[in-house]
Amino acid sequence: MKIAIQGEGGSFSEDAARQMAPGAKVVACVRSAEVFAQVQRGSVAAAVIPIENTLAGSVTEHFDLLLANDVFIQREFRLRIVHNLIAAPGVKRSEIRRVYSHPVALDQCRDFFRRNPKIEPMPFYDTAGSVKHIIQNRLQDAAGIAAAQAAKVYQGRILAAGIEDDKRNFTRFFLIRKSRRALPGANKTSIAFSVRNIPGALFKALSVFALRDISLSKIESRPMRGRPWEYMFYADYLRGDDEPARNALRHLGEVTDLVKVLGIYPAAKM
Amino acid sequence: MKIAIQGEGGSFSEDAARQMAPGAKVVACVRSAEVFAQVQRGSVAAAVIPIENTLAGSVTEHFDLLLANDVFIQREFRLRIVHNLIAAPGVKRSEIRRVYSHPVALDQCRDFFRRNPKIEPMPFYDTAGSVKHIIQNRLQDAAGIAAAQAAKVYQGRILAAGIEDDKRNFTRFFLIRKSRRALPGANKTSIAFSVRNIPGALFKALSVFALRDISLSKIESRPMRGRPWEYMFYADYLRGDDEPARNALRHLGEVTDLVKVLGIYPAAKM
Repeated sequence: MKIAIQGEGGSFSEDAARQMAPGAKVVACVRSAEVFAQVQRGSVAAAVIPIENTLAGSVTEHFDLLLANDVFIQREFRLRIVHNLIAAPGVKRSEIRRVYSHPVALDQCRDFFRRNPKIEPMPFYDTAGSVKHIIQNRLQDAAGIAAAQAAKVYQGRILAAGIEDDKRNFTRFFLIRKSRRALPGANKTSIAFSVRNIPGALFKALSVFALRDISLSKIESRPMRGRPWEYMFYADYLRGDDEPARNALRHLGEVTDLVKVLGIYPAAKM
Repeated sequence: MKIAIQGEGGSFSEDAARQMAPGAKVVACVRSAEVFAQVQRGSVAAAVIPIENTLAGSVTEHFDLLLANDVFIQREFRLRIVHNLIAAPGVKRSEIRRVYSHPVALDQCRDFFRRNPKIEPMPFYDTAGSVKHIIQNRLQDAAGIAAAQAAKVYQGRILAAGIEDDKRNFTRFFLIRKSRRALPGANKTSIAFSVRNIPGALFKALSVFALRDISLSKIESRPMRGRPWEYMFYADYLRGDDEPARNALRHLGEVTDLVKVLGIYPAAKM
């Protein structure tokens, strides 16, 4: 079974994919749009995508792609994020002057840079990619910040483990497939909807859940492309495909312009 | 009068600051936290910060900083974003193989990269900073993507203007001050609030506006630091400091854990 991820090998996405689908072959894609396209055309069985981080917030591009593509969320998973300082073999910690990583990862290690004012943070397009870069170019005064897996994949050395500021740092991942089949025990639903730009429109939309005691676990807005200052809403509620949820969705259809069910899946335990 | 911005000179923030406060001296800061700190300690009169882009979405760090700091939004402004391809003088368009810019700007010029498959997009920490980089290092096969202002500041040449995919591309800026004084004609309010993690909590919070026919123009959620899977909400409503709005805020205080008024200001015309 092949599972697509975005980013280089050794990334947090690869870590999540290996835990969600042990034994699967991981296919790394450069762009997220390509990950979704591979699922849609069936060249991979599924994809594992990050959707939100408890410190950095949502991976907004993935909300847009869930809406635009004919895919379905089948499972969610929460990964504890541990950042590691990784350098080429033989490089000493005292020699390091620059540390590369994705801006979100650099931002989650602010205390490390405060304690090491001689080390300059260098924004890079990818966490695992930063380790690949410093090792392939044999940089002697640089390191990357990435998952432990990246040290294994690119044969780097971990000089410091767990350098993130806040240990309560989790990323939520979705496993997406082309099939719209929900797994047994599916008790959580993700939807997208848009409301007319009139007073009370969002209030009416939320009433369809509140009136049925259906609990929303998250709601988020995203600007709509080509329609400045209008928004698409993304919400999760703690119900599977039962009668109250079906009634709520039908009711939501009456008071909104568009509703799309993005997935129905078992809620992650953690 | 001194106005702080985040990022290099020649940025969209500088453009917005010059239009919002003609004649002010612009103070460029590396980090957004420093921009807010300067306003708080009074070393600048005000700051101009981007808060959301109609294609890319919110500048989430600035929501966090508005909540954490003792500052007040006094004005909003909408800037039309025009991306320009800028290179060192003498460099021809046909020689360009790499184009540097902030990942958000690169992403807003996808069609340009599709039409020019030999040119590689290179993520950089800042739009104007990418122009500074290619010109200071006299790169002969590279360009940056930034505001026209950046070409002026770093003496680059604009090789192509308006290369963004979508012309309906606006960024909304706030002018923030330490003083909580609202300007005459202030008819829009930005607030932050958090709700208890119980069913219907957000619905109750929105009811305080719906019951008074107060129109929300935006609502957005952000994860709370150190409290995984809990959220802070940020909302704008189209009312100034009048009696219904004061009643709504008092009512909101009854049904939420925390309410903070981030600013009361005249709504931008455009």
